This record gives sequence, structure tokens and C-alpha cells, in this order.
Amino acid sequence: MTHARHITLPAGFVAGAVRCGLKSTQREDLAIIAAGDGPVPAAVVTTRNQVVGAPVRWCRSVLPRGYGRIRGVVVNAGNSNVCNGKRGDRDAAAMASMTAGFLGGTAEEVLVCSTGIIGHPMPMDKVRQGIAAAAGGLSAGNDAAVAAAIMTTDTRPKSAVVQGRIGGKLVTVAGIAKGAGMIAPSLATMLSFITTDAALRPAALGGALKAAVEPTFNAVTIDSDTSTSDTVIVMASGAAGNAAIAGGADLAKFARLLTEVCAALAEMIARDGEGATKLLRVTVRGARTDADARTAAKAIANSPLMKCAVHGGDPNWGRVLMAAGKSGAAVDQDRATCKIGPVTVMRRGTSCPYDTAAAEAHMAGDTVEIDLNLALGKGRFTALTCDLSREYVAINADYHT
Amino acid sequence: MTHARHITLPAGFVAGAVRCGLKSTQREDLAIIAAGDGPVPAAVVTTRNQVVGAPVRWCRSVLPRGYGRIRGVVVNAGNSNVCNGKRGDRDAAAMASMTAGFLGGTAEEVLVCSTGIIGHPMPMDKVRQGIAAAAGGLSAGNDAAVAAAIMTTDTRPKSAVVQGRIGGKLVTVAGIAKGAGMIAPSLATMLSFITTDAALRPAALGGALKAAVEPTFNAVTIDSDTSTSDTVIVMASGAAGNAAIAGGADLAKFARLLTEVCAALAEMIARDGEGATKLLRVTVRGARTDADARTAAKAIANSPLMKCAVHGGDPNWGRVLMAAGKSGAAVDQDRATCKIGPVTVMRRGTSCPYDTAAAEAHMAGDTVEIDLNLALGKGRFTALTCDLSREYVAINADYHT
Repeated sequence: MTHARHITLPAGFVAGAVRCGLKSTQREDLAIIAAGDGPVPAAVVTTRNQVVGAPVRWCRSVLPRGYGRIRGVVVNAGNSNVCNGKRGDRDAAAMASMTAGFLGGTAEEVLVCSTGIIGHPMPMDKVRQGIAAAAGGLSAGNDAAVAAAIMTTDTRPKSAVVQGRIGGKLVTVAGIAKGAGMIAPSLATMLSFITTDAALRPAALGGALKAAVEPTFNAVTIDSDTSTSDTVIVMASGAAGNAAIAGGADLAKFARLLTEVCAALAEMIARDGEGATKLLRVTVRGARTDADARTAAKAIANSPLMKCAVHGGDPNWGRVLMAAGKSGAAVDQDRATCKIGPVTVMRRGTSCPYDTAAAEAHMAGDTVEIDLNLALGKGRFTALTCDLSREYVAINADYHT
Repeated sequence: MTHARHITLPAGFVAGAVRCGLKSTQREDLAIIAAGDGPVPAAVVTTRNQVVGAPVRWCRSVLPRGYGRIRGVVVNAGNSNVCNGKRGDRDAAAMASMTAGFLGGTAEEVLVCSTGIIGHPMPMDKVRQGIAAAAGGLSAGNDAAVAAAIMTTDTRPKSAVVQGRIGGKLVTVAGIAKGAGMIAPSLATMLSFITTDAALRPAALGGALKAAVEPTFNAVTIDSDTSTSDTVIVMASGAAGNAAIAGGADLAKFARLLTEVCAALAEMIARDGEGATKLLRVTVRGARTDADARTAAKAIANSPLMKCAVHGGDPNWGRVLMAAGKSGAAVDQDRATCKIGPVTVMRRGTSCPYDTAAAEAHMAGDTVEIDLNLALGKGRFTALTCDLSREYVAINADYHT
């Protein structure tokens, strides 16, 4: 699914990225992704944290219903513009306004995303130069630089592309994402930008994005901490030429494509969590409700004890059951059954003899699957996370402000 | 407050501890704490995890209201008797019954606590020999051995004693505890046993224990994981000769003494968390409600990012605000003010200039205080935890079942 051209692969988009000195590394740190031909339908989902950065406040004020029409997005890494008071809000608006100047529209047609250090005012002189340079170089050939520009401590860029036929036309959905990297003293932040050449009504796009985010990006947890800047944005150019999707079977089809891209990016984010050596996929099934399944799956995926056991390759089903039991989801320990990979390690709350070698072999791989069946109902949820390693502690303890 | 004689310091109690081979170390692993002269008022509080060990089930069935009269407690480390099905329940009952045989009463007059490996049947032959030996050696001189017997990977035994005058009599309250140690593949477990020579009605003792546990043991979080075996038990011999406390000012006085012992033990547990190098005390004040304060304080204390920052000695207030914001407690970021030790590092949601050296000096000490004022109401809670170190990961990842 990874592609050399991704974010501008769907027709109708251009992008540009530059290094303007916000990051301490030599990489790009500011990018613009824009519709090539005026405003297009777009949708945005932002963090659930009550503490949010100025860019999130800007996006919410511009698209209060979560969808509408925009010309593009300006994004930077290196400074998250969080906890900078009114000055932060002014700076975010100025970033939108400057970008709009180059794209030929109003500030309200540009979304802003920032990730990086918090509590430090945005160095607007650098940002101004960066926006001018990125806008000057907008084209369909900068995808790699754009994917690099949004990275913080991600170890690799993340992108995904899927295609399908809708309304007789070939439709492309492409996305890039950054994951749980840190530029201390900031927060791990998840950002994703998705483009498509499908034609949709804005409200339909908004609904599809909300639905796609839930089982994908919102299923990822690296360390239970929620960034103040998490943002997912999708733009739809309509260049594919299909009749604008408003609902029905075409919307369902599009939502599937969008969800597929989000799922691929979410898995890449989990696999590249700070210090991660493995992807951990936790499925809770048979819960009383889907909400219960989600609560229990997240509790298992967030359990430091569980994540350490996965890091150590230990099929520790006791920690699975413990985490479900403390989560608040309904659990009857005498009904619960747990599998690690293909191996049933606990049946109805009691240890059962199992093939230790097979369980350990599964855990030695780069993807660990834990499946807990609560046998109480039909609720089901899969959470994505990574193992907890000494490297995570090193990344997050050794930096000094 | 630490004392050579603790658990039997209050008159009217005896104890004994032996090594019967449940632990792989050379330390004691089974103990009995008993009233010297027949059943006495007692109270018990057990884990909130829905998955519980057979010993917790036994305690709940014997004291369904959380208080009553008992002759003593039998406790072992090395095997938690969790997830062993009906056999586990039979074994817990048998441990009570055997101990009662030596103490001269019925099984229902003996509480049982176990901590250690889960999913392995209790080796009852060893347990039987251990109970006989411990019962044979009951005296007031075994306190150190008893405190050692309940340890798993605790690095040191924990005990506390306080005294005060109630109803004209000198009253002693003494306790021991074990903290967040692991015998993989088991769970971190908190156990505490408290004795007092005060005379109380059982219901009054039950109420005092519930009240004392809330701001103390229930304020501790090592890694957000809740054991299936957590248990706190208090027994009151009445040997002090005061008129039996049923309520009023005397009960308030006793509750203060009991809370003081619980607070001292809780702090020792937090400070001795797995891999811990520091105690972290997180106070959230000015919350809309006490429940909100608790939610936010626990979220900060459980944040792996925050705990890593404390380990690294970094005054990272961004992570404090982030954790409060994601917790679900009401937070208005433009009102929140944060102190690290004596230093105000953020005022009304915005970074403020501060004495970096003073903040870092505070964080270099062995006790770190974080104070977040939400300025929304009068809710207040203090959570206790420790830092997150590479050693925590090592302890919990490197063991193989």
C-alpha cells in the first residue's frame, strides 16, 4: 500500500514542504497541502483532550460542524503552539491568513496543524518565510518531503493509498500520517492528512471521516496519553468525475476505502510508537456491548504490565484478565477465555494446559495478537498499541527542557 | 514511625511466620496474625477489580458487610490462588479451616490472603506444613518475619505505628504492608494488615477502615494496574481498655490514627514501586468536585509520559496539563495553574518565566510534588505514585513464564 506518490496521487492536489528551522534536525518542518483549483469539500476530526492547541481551536472555529469547504492545510512540526495564550491564537490565524494569501482565498479556507514543543511562542519570522517558500513550490512532486515535514520522532514516514470504483469511476484515497513521536517537552501527537479525487457533498465526507476514525485512529493507544493537537483532515477534489456522493451505497463504498486508508495508517502509527519493537493487536469479543469491548480492549492495550510482558515475549494471560477486570467493562471471570495468537491459554477463567512453545513463538514475532472472549454478549473492539520498552523510558526521561 | 515490633505491638495479638517453599527465595512465605484471646472485631476492604482471587472471594463470603469478628488471618506470598477455578475456592477454605483448627475456632473466623503467581494451583502440602509450623510458633516476637513473609519483589518491609489517647486510654494502631512487587506472571498486589488495642464495635471499625483506605491506599497507583488480590484488614483487640467505640468524637479520633497508619504505609508502597527512584505526590485542587480532582490526579499519576519526565528530572508541566485534559475531569486550560515543588511553572494555561534551576533542584530530590490548581471549584485530591524507569520495564519484561 505504501507509495512513492501518495498525498498528491489523487488528481486535483498539490503540496510543498520546506525546512524553515522549527526542528533541530535537518529535515523539512513546514508543509502546505492544497486543492489545485479553489475550495473543495473537506472534513476534520480533532483531539478529545479538553486542553487543545491554538491550531485545533482554529480548525474548530473554521469548520464548527467538522466539515465544509477549504483550499488547503498548512502544517508544521517543531512547535505545537499549545499554551501560548491569545498570542497563540493570533499566530495560528496568521498562518492561515498568510497561506490563504498565496492560495488566493480567505483565512477561513485554510486549516492549521502544529506539532512539537509546547509553551513556546511560535517563531513567526521563520514560519512566514517557510509558508512563502512552501507556497512557491507547490506541485504534485513533493510528497516525500511533505511526509517528512510532519514527522517528529517517528522513525519512518507513513503513507497509504487505496483505489476502488464508485459511480463507474476509479476513485483514489491517499493519506499520510505522523505518530507518537516526541519533541520534548511536548506531547505525542497523531496527525493525518488524506486526499481523494472522489466527489462528495461536505456533510457526507464529514460523516465518512467520523465513522472511519473510530475503529482506526481512535483504536490506537501508545501510552494512554492523548495529545492536545491530534488532528485528521480529509479533502475531496472531485476530479474523479463521479456524481457527488451524498449518501447511500456510494457513500458506504467510499467510507470503506477511507476506513481502509485510516486503518493502514493507524497500524503504522502503532507499530512505530516510541521505543516500539512490536505491534500489539488486542481484540475483545463477546462483551456485553461494543462500548464495553472498547473499554476492556483499551485497558489491556494501555496496561504497562501487559505491554512489558509483550516486550519480553511472555504469554502472560493473567495480565490480560487483570486489565479487563479493572477496566469497568462487565467481566465474569468464570466465562472469559483468552487466546494469544492461535493458542488458547486460558479457558473460562482457569489456566489450561497449552503449547508454550507455540505461544512464545507467536510472541517472538513482530505482531502480537491477543484475543479475549468475555462470553457475555456480542460487543467487539480491536485496539492497537505497541510494546513498552526501556527505549520508551529513555526517549521520554532523558530529555531535559 | 517504623518500629522493630509493629504488628504485635498493640496488646492482644500474636503472629508467626515460616518458610514453607512457596517463594523461590530463602525468605519466609507464610504467616498467621491472630488475636491472642478469641474472636475480635475486624474489618476488611478488598480490590475493586472484577477479577478476584479465591482468597478475596473467601474474605467477602466470611464478612459480607466488610466487618465482623475474626480470630486471625493466614497469608502467603508466592502463589496468589487466582484463576484456579473451584479448586482455588476449596484451597482457600481449607487454609482458613486448618488455621482455625490451631486457633481453636471455625473456618469462618479466619481470613485468607495470597499474593504471587496466578493460574497455578496452590501446593497445599507445603501450605499445610507451613500453617502448622506458623501456628506452632505464634508469639509477640515474630514481627520482622511476618513483614518479610508478605513481601514479593518489595525491596524492603513496610511498617508503621501511631499512638493516641481515646477515652482516657493510650491506644496503639500498627500496620504492615506489601506493595507493588511482582512474582511474574502474576500481578502487583497491595496487602496490608493492621492491629489495634482499641476497643470498637465491628461496624464502627468497618466504617473507619473504609474512610481510611480512600485517601491513602486508594490514592496509590504504581502503573494504573489493579491487582486481583488487594486486601486491607484491621483487627481490634480491645486490650487498651477504653469503652467500645461506636461513633462520635472517639470514632473520629480513632479514624484519624488509622488513617495516619494507612497514609504512612501507602507512601512507603508508592516509594517502593517497581523500579522506583522517587515518590511522586500529585495534588489537584480547585477542581469542580472531589471526584473530578481524583480523576485528574490519578490521570497525571498514571501518565507514562509524566512518570518518565519525573524519572528524568524534567519539570514538564505540559504533560501535567495534557493528562488532566484527557482525564474526563472538567478542565478549562485558560484557568489552570501548575506548580512543581515551590515553583509556579505555568499560570492560567500559559507558560510563564520561572526559576528553572529551582524546579530542577526540586525534581532531583527523592520526593517530587506536583500541584495543579484548576480554579473551577473546591475539589481536591492527592494521588501517590513513583517514577517510571528502565528498571520497571526490566522487572516486568524480562521474566519468562
